[in-house]
Amino acid sequence: MPSQPFHGVLVPVLTPFTRSGDPDAGRFVAFCRWLLDQGAGGLSVFGTTSEANSMSGSERMALLDRLIEAGIPADKLMPGTGACSMTEAASLVQHAVGHGCGGVLMLPPFYYKPVSDDGIFAFVSGVIDKVASPALRVYLYHIPPVAQVGYSLDLVGRFITAYRETVVGLKDSSGDWSNTAALLERYPGFAVFPGSEVFLLDALRKGGAGCITASGNVNVPGIHRVYDNWRGPQADALQAEATALRKALQAYPMVPALKRIVAHFHNDPDWAAVRPPMLPLDEAQSQALIADLAKLGFTLGERPRSMAA
Amino acid sequence: MPSQPFHGVLVPVLTPFTRSGDPDAGRFVAFCRWLLDQGAGGLSVFGTTSEANSMSGSERMALLDRLIEAGIPADKLMPGTGACSMTEAASLVQHAVGHGCGGVLMLPPFYYKPVSDDGIFAFVSGVIDKVASPALRVYLYHIPPVAQVGYSLDLVGRFITAYRETVVGLKDSSGDWSNTAALLERYPGFAVFPGSEVFLLDALRKGGAGCITASGNVNVPGIHRVYDNWRGPQADALQAEATALRKALQAYPMVPALKRIVAHFHNDPDWAAVRPPMLPLDEAQSQALIADLAKLGFTLGERPRSMAA
Repeated sequence: MPSQPFHGVLVPVLTPFTRSGDPDAGRFVAFCRWLLDQGAGGLSVFGTTSEANSMSGSERMALLDRLIEAGIPADKLMPGTGACSMTEAASLVQHAVGHGCGGVLMLPPFYYKPVSDDGIFAFVSGVIDKVASPALRVYLYHIPPVAQVGYSLDLVGRFITAYRETVVGLKDSSGDWSNTAALLERYPGFAVFPGSEVFLLDALRKGGAGCITASGNVNVPGIHRVYDNWRGPQADALQAEATALRKALQAYPMVPALKRIVAHFHNDPDWAAVRPPMLPLDEAQSQALIADLAKLGFTLGERPRSMAA
Repeated sequence: MPSQPFHGVLVPVLTPFTRSGDPDAGRFVAFCRWLLDQGAGGLSVFGTTSEANSMSGSERMALLDRLIEAGIPADKLMPGTGACSMTEAASLVQHAVGHGCGGVLMLPPFYYKPVSDDGIFAFVSGVIDKVASPALRVYLYHIPPVAQVGYSLDLVGRFITAYRETVVGLKDSSGDWSNTAALLERYPGFAVFPGSEVFLLDALRKGGAGCITASGNVNVPGIHRVYDNWRGPQADALQAEATALRKALQAYPMVPALKRIVAHFHNDPDWAAVRPPMLPLDEAQSQALIADLAKLGFTLGERPRSMAA
């Protein structure tokens, strides 16, 4: 297996919008920098949590340009390149490779259903062959609850065989631990990241590379402590704390909830804006969420108070 | 209800690709002209059958430019404007309106799931408000088997109330006659097109405007006879003949099968090409399909032989 540059807690970064509904590059750059300062092992900008598919390709590329201009290290970036057309996917991948990004996170084509493994293979391999760069590192993005189309275990093996130097990892957002476990068992050395920190400790114990998780937007420190201490005696207790926060978040629509938390703790109400078809939390939901977090002793960017002693 | 320009048999036009995989504008223009000559009441270019979501927005806009330049009447065109982002959807709608197209066929945003009716309403109304043209006519595109996200009966009513002059119709590709019937009953005067000719006669008897159907690519004449004769004594027999061909097609993946038929009858093998994630029929499927059609007496562009006597 080739070396791959990502380990630890990767964050699918929230995308802030201005009051007129445009991506807010200034807030985005600042937030990315803050996440890296918190210890994020990489930034999966333009993932599902980023509302990437509510942005055009050119909006995504303009934001990536701004990150690079601002000095965010390209090797820490794993932009999502989700698109239904090979044409657009190849443009997004080419753009990321051109900036020297550490990798790309690639959805399968997600409009047509059902599609065959052969059809998905033709799509992804067509994109890889078109970009034709030895610098390209592809992480397959498996998220069937949203995309409905996914990468089967066998299909992952076909990619590893055909593109050993290029297809180096996978984000498993199936929510199905048995799938993550099977990937780790069948493809040792292939970088598997569960899509939730709930599975982080279990994944690390089977050779996983870390996790790529929405809640990383508000809890890099808490999740990172699991990663740092997974061989130690506190591992299960640290995992339980991280899981407790995740479960609290999951009581709400995830992206609006995360944005509400950032807005609340940064005292910046505009951060709560989402793009349709998502909607912001209403006032009652917002208050309930903040109250739920208070019960857990949560403060953005710090260790939960319950762990501070 | 406002007047709306589309009636009869509308065709979601197949998109031909060159051997290098690019949209083939020359073949596309010729095919659109042929469909209108066959009696198509309108061309829903860039629908699901068109592999529109396997093309980038700029590829779709370039093809529409070529149709207009070639003299295809804009008022016969109902381009699909499916996109997950409001940004791209608004660009596609603006482009179609700028060309004077008779209408647009608008998918709901189809990446995120689940989404609320309020979220879909915010997306579509945001696009309409951004384009802000009195010339715009929107046909909602309801195809939950593919898009997974759809327009509920109540949501359709909200659009009719809020945008009476703009949201004038709907293509119902749910495959669920009870939904089509409910739309026709609840919203008289609203232009409802079932997404399959199987429901054409039933829809016309309840005030439907026609149908928008994939099989129109190879059978405008047969379907049009149902439309022309729906009040006459032959109506049920004509519907049965059209339905028999549709059922034969449905035994195969629809888009590759339709392209194979066009390739066969036009003696033009390149027409069979599809873009991943779709795959062409293999040789055995192709031969079986052509044999099935022969049993029905089918010849492209002519009345089935069984009806010729």
